[in-house]
Amino acid sequence: MHKIDLNSDLGESFGTYTLGMDEKLMDYITSANVACGWHAGDPNVMQKTLQAAAQKGVAVGAHPGYPDLLGFGRREMKISPDEAYAYVLHQLGALDAFARVEGCKLQHIKPHGALYNQACKDDKLASAICRAARDFSKDLIVLAPYNSAFRTAAEALGQPFAAEFFADRAYLPDGSLVPRSQPGAVIHDPEVACQRVLQMAREGTVTCNDGTVLHMRCASVCVHGDNEAALASVKKIRQALEADGVQLCAMKELIK
Amino acid sequence: MHKIDLNSDLGESFGTYTLGMDEKLMDYITSANVACGWHAGDPNVMQKTLQAAAQKGVAVGAHPGYPDLLGFGRREMKISPDEAYAYVLHQLGALDAFARVEGCKLQHIKPHGALYNQACKDDKLASAICRAARDFSKDLIVLAPYNSAFRTAAEALGQPFAAEFFADRAYLPDGSLVPRSQPGAVIHDPEVACQRVLQMAREGTVTCNDGTVLHMRCASVCVHGDNEAALASVKKIRQALEADGVQLCAMKELIK
Amino acid sequence: MHKIDLNSDLGESFGTYTLGMDEKLMDYITSANVACGWHAGDPNVMQKTLQAAAQKGVAVGAHPGYPDLLGFGRREMKISPDEAYAYVLHQLGALDAFARVEGCKLQHIKPHGALYNQACKDDKLASAICRAARDFSKDLIVLAPYNSAFRTAAEALGQPFAAEFFADRAYLPDGSLVPRSQPGAVIHDPEVACQRVLQMAREGTVTCNDGTVLHMRCASVCVHGDNEAALASVKKIRQALEADGVQLCAMKELIK
Amino acid sequence: MHKIDLNSDLGESFGTYTLGMDEKLMDYITSANVACGWHAGDPNVMQKTLQAAAQKGVAVGAHPGYPDLLGFGRREMKISPDEAYAYVLHQLGALDAFARVEGCKLQHIKPHGALYNQACKDDKLASAICRAARDFSKDLIVLAPYNSAFRTAAEALGQPFAAEFFADRAYLPDGSLVPRSQPGAVIHDPEVACQRVLQMAREGTVTCNDGTVLHMRCASVCVHGDNEAALASVKKIRQALEADGVQLCAMKELIK
Repeated sequence: MHKIDLNSDLGESFGTYTLGMDEKLMDYITSANVACGWHAGDPNVMQKTLQAAAQKGVAVGAHPGYPDLLGFGRREMKISPDEAYAYVLHQLGALDAFARVEGCKLQHIKPHGALYNQACKDDKLASAICRAARDFSKDLIVLAPYNSAFRTAAEALGQPFAAEFFADRAYLPDGSLVPRSQPGAVIHDPEVACQRVLQMAREGTVTCNDGTVLHMRCASVCVHGDNEAALASVKKIRQALEADGVQLCAMKELIK
Repeated sequence: MHKIDLNSDLGESFGTYTLGMDEKLMDYITSANVACGWHAGDPNVMQKTLQAAAQKGVAVGAHPGYPDLLGFGRREMKISPDEAYAYVLHQLGALDAFARVEGCKLQHIKPHGALYNQACKDDKLASAICRAARDFSKDLIVLAPYNSAFRTAAEALGQPFAAEFFADRAYLPDGSLVPRSQPGAVIHDPEVACQRVLQMAREGTVTCNDGTVLHMRCASVCVHGDNEAALASVKKIRQALEADGVQLCAMKELIK
Repeated sequence: MHKIDLNSDLGESFGTYTLGMDEKLMDYITSANVACGWHAGDPNVMQKTLQAAAQKGVAVGAHPGYPDLLGFGRREMKISPDEAYAYVLHQLGALDAFARVEGCKLQHIKPHGALYNQACKDDKLASAICRAARDFSKDLIVLAPYNSAFRTAAEALGQPFAAEFFADRAYLPDGSLVPRSQPGAVIHDPEVACQRVLQMAREGTVTCNDGTVLHMRCASVCVHGDNEAALASVKKIRQALEADGVQLCAMKELIK
Repeated sequence: MHKIDLNSDLGESFGTYTLGMDEKLMDYITSANVACGWHAGDPNVMQKTLQAAAQKGVAVGAHPGYPDLLGFGRREMKISPDEAYAYVLHQLGALDAFARVEGCKLQHIKPHGALYNQACKDDKLASAICRAARDFSKDLIVLAPYNSAFRTAAEALGQPFAAEFFADRAYLPDGSLVPRSQPGAVIHDPEVACQRVLQMAREGTVTCNDGTVLHMRCASVCVHGDNEAALASVKKIRQALEADGVQLCAMKELIK
């Protein structure tokens, strides 16, 4: 029987500012990537998010980002591997304190925004992040793209790795994403997105933008729930997977 | 045989800014209160500080403060108990990640600056901080003044508590400190400070500003090492204690 | 002919976080209190806000707050008068740069949140803020409650002062606001709020919570526009004033 | 008669953290680049720095940087030209408020660290910064390397430009600096540095690392004063210039 995880970014509110529809989204996902107070999130938001996740049985992971609240962690920064290592550890520990209070363990780590994007292509950065993950816990799963420096770094360190699939993004024949600057990069039709998830979950493949069918067995599908339309799309994907006999479960049940 | 702990604040550098003489100070103290990146400190400073402490065999505790780097956490803020709880947990967790990497456990918590001073007199704030300590770990020692809302709150929660003695401060007959605004509040003569520490360590008493001799058995003495003079004073206290047959050891060996 | 100003807080978005309905609100108000990047706002938000104000003919003032984005400047802090002076100057200057680009001058200053509330009752804090206003520009109007330390401080320095009236708050016979902790502190009925504004604008009086009719000639009425209901209420107040023959204009046309 | 300006970065302390030897350095320089609270500096430091500059007759300019106190503005960030424009305006305005209080005008702008380095090579970034300078004041001098995108951008906008010379850095034949990663990039001998300044001041030339003598008439020389050795070096340069009959004066007296 096929199993798959649905992951999404949550806990990105800050102080008086609210972002996302976290509580509703948690009804459909199986893993939550929780902001740790750097690019977004604050201690009270982290606490509330972990409480809700524990209550709804959603597995939690850390979603560490750059020290750039103003840019929401989406702007490239040139930090050293030593800085990346310490920044990630800091955020892992901070989130873990709230997990501890809820009696749960952090399942995974998925860096945010520019830190994620840069590390996908930068061996030293990916390695520093994976070392922080390993030094924090040998069980912490690194969640990142199928083809990425993260995978290489995690495997080199013997750290568990889970590949994530992007339902609404087109892929190039080399397994990387079509850059957003190119036409067709984003798949806007929820039906098509849904079909692609089903294909990946059942057959472990993705059809690239040139028609090539590529092997890509991912443990998790990345979904977004910032607005009503996105939420409806997540609900649709979940229902399609269940109707197709694919079991939804947290990635820790898939990755050994 | 008498035993005592010497604690001091460390890890208060930030980015390009250096503060204190941490490495030298660690040769004389037995417990380090390490800033957690809010009022001072940053992830790389935290890492370096925990490495040095592990190497020198100094026990480490968290020194959480207000989100006020600009005011070094020394300015009163009116935050809610829920905020205090979450802020302290966040800082405990962040520091713990670096302790984990060094293979050690956090021994204690001692809030910083205005957070410490306000909570000494505010039951709700002290209780929120002690609950965060307990929810983080039932073994985490709360380090605070002998007479303070911290003691009441820690005892009510069954959390281990260590009293700290201020070598360079005069005491009122009720066991509280002479406010800094009053003459004689600070003891400038290192000889006198040293004698007071010896008296407390040997006899468990302090002579108040009106001559009253008060019972005050403290597990730890708070010392400062920001400059050469302060460092010389710490060295002097340590040597006097050792010459007097008092054994220096981390507070966890004194508190059950 | 009676004239009155309507002021509201704007420009409180930050980075990816959006707050308020600034553009719509500007169709009804005559003066905007613009956040300066400390408790809220950021340079791009400030620029956009000043552009919109210039385009819509709304006068602008600075809305400086505490360095506490996490608490939205609503938490009391104990800062020194010297710090308050420098913090306010910094924020005045920063906002002024954007006013300059739009070819307009800052009309007024109205501190935000806890800084405002504390200074209403703290002579030294109010005086430090008014000195910053004066040193920035002798024409900068201080906007604050009718009865407040701001008024005394501004008058002592010869700085122009405008009193503001709260449409939705009950008043005590001494001219101060009924504290929010007490029943009846907030007037929820927009009709009643509207009538109170008309009475103040026409007769220069307010009916206190014990029935006393107090003289209170205010140049400006403080309104809020964070949501659709609030916006509807502002629209209602504006229409009632115009229907009653009261002319809406920026406070600089009322204060010499 | 030859004239030249000596500029240096100042006002980089923050809260409890002290950096540099500002007051002493001001005895030797003619222009101060003052941090504006983003990469370093805070409102009280800005005020104190402008007071000292006014008292010592040192001309002041803004030294805006990235929103990265943790990295001291030295880490590359990828911000948009619109963000750069608004960030620079914000910092210009904030510093200007303190200049106003001292009765002086900002003379120049020299971006800091990574913002400076990136803009030297990035036309769009340099142009955004120069537009902010122009929109702030048509008289504000842009201070940057002789060969840089800043020069092109400033000239295109008709904004006054002053080239700065680096006494302790080797130059390539194209007029750019030898990268720090290459041997010989930094000139450690104060005597040699001093001779190079004299040659530039007198003859308007620099001898490059391959022996080429290049025309490079700079209005200002950039010096550093972070420690006693650096300060001694600045003193030496000043004395050598004066002994050689070169007049020290603020760059505004050289640039029309």
